[in-house]
Amino acid sequence: MLNIEHIGIAVKSLDISVPLFEKLLNTTCYKTEAVASEAVKTAFFKQGETKVELLESTSADSVIAKFIEKKGEGMHHIAFEVADIYAEMKRLQNEGFVLLNETPKNGADDKLVCFLHPKSTNGLLVELCQEKK
Amino acid sequence: MLNIEHIGIAVKSLDISVPLFEKLLNTTCYKTEAVASEAVKTAFFKQGETKVELLESTSADSVIAKFIEKKGEGMHHIAFEVADIYAEMKRLQNEGFVLLNETPKNGADDKLVCFLHPKSTNGLLVELCQEKK
Repeated sequence: MLNIEHIGIAVKSLDISVPLFEKLLNTTCYKTEAVASEAVKTAFFKQGETKVELLESTSADSVIAKFIEKKGEGMHHIAFEVADIYAEMKRLQNEGFVLLNETPKNGADDKLVCFLHPKSTNGLLVELCQEKK
Repeated sequence: MLNIEHIGIAVKSLDISVPLFEKLLNTTCYKTEAVASEAVKTAFFKQGETKVELLESTSADSVIAKFIEKKGEGMHHIAFEVADIYAEMKRLQNEGFVLLNETPKNGADDKLVCFLHPKSTNGLLVELCQEKK
C-alpha cells in the first residue's frame, strides 16, 4: 500500500454536488468520467497528493444507488495506490481479507482496481488501484 | 484547503481494529491518543502524505458511539489541513457552509479543529485542522 489515492463520495447529483465541492474545496473539478461497468458518472478534484471522487449512479440498481438508499449520501470508499496490484491482492488474501473481484478490473482514471469486502475490513470499502502500464 | 490530513474511521474496538489495520495497510500504528473532549481513543497510521485515524468511543453517548449505532463501523470523517483555520472557517461560512463549532477547538494530534455540518456538505462530515503554532 502506498498513499491514499482518492476518497470516493456517493452523491445523488453531480450537477448539485460538483459546484458544492468546488466551493468546499476551493478548487475546480478537473475531470468528469463515466464508468459504464460500475454504472456511475464520476467527478474528480485534487487536494494535495490525494483526490476526491464524487460518484453519481446512472442506474437504479448500481452499487452507488443501493448505498445511498441504505446509508444516504456520503463517504463510500477509500482507495489506496499500490505498485503491484496482483502482489497486493495476494498479500491481502493471505492475511484473510476477502476480495470482491478475483482479478483486477478497469476502474476510473485509467487504473486497474480491486475492492475488498467491507465485512473483512471493519465496514470500510477499500479499493486498491494501480496505474495501467 | 491543503491536503487531506487524515480519514477518520469509527471502530468498536481498537484492540481488534489496530491489528486488522496493521495487516491491511502493511504498516505499524505509530501513535494512540485519548481525546477526552470527544470521548474517544484514537490510533494513527501513516499512508504517504495522509493518515488513517481509528476512533473508538469511550462513552455510550459520544458522537462515535451514536454513529456506529446508526450506520455501523466505517468511514466517519475526512479532515483537510488548512494553513489558517480562522480564515478558512470564515470563507466557508460565507459560502453557506454550517460550522459545528464557532471557534476552533483542541483535537487529536496537537491540532486546532473545526467540523462542518454534514447537512451542508452532502452528508460528509468534514474536519478542518491546523497544526498548533
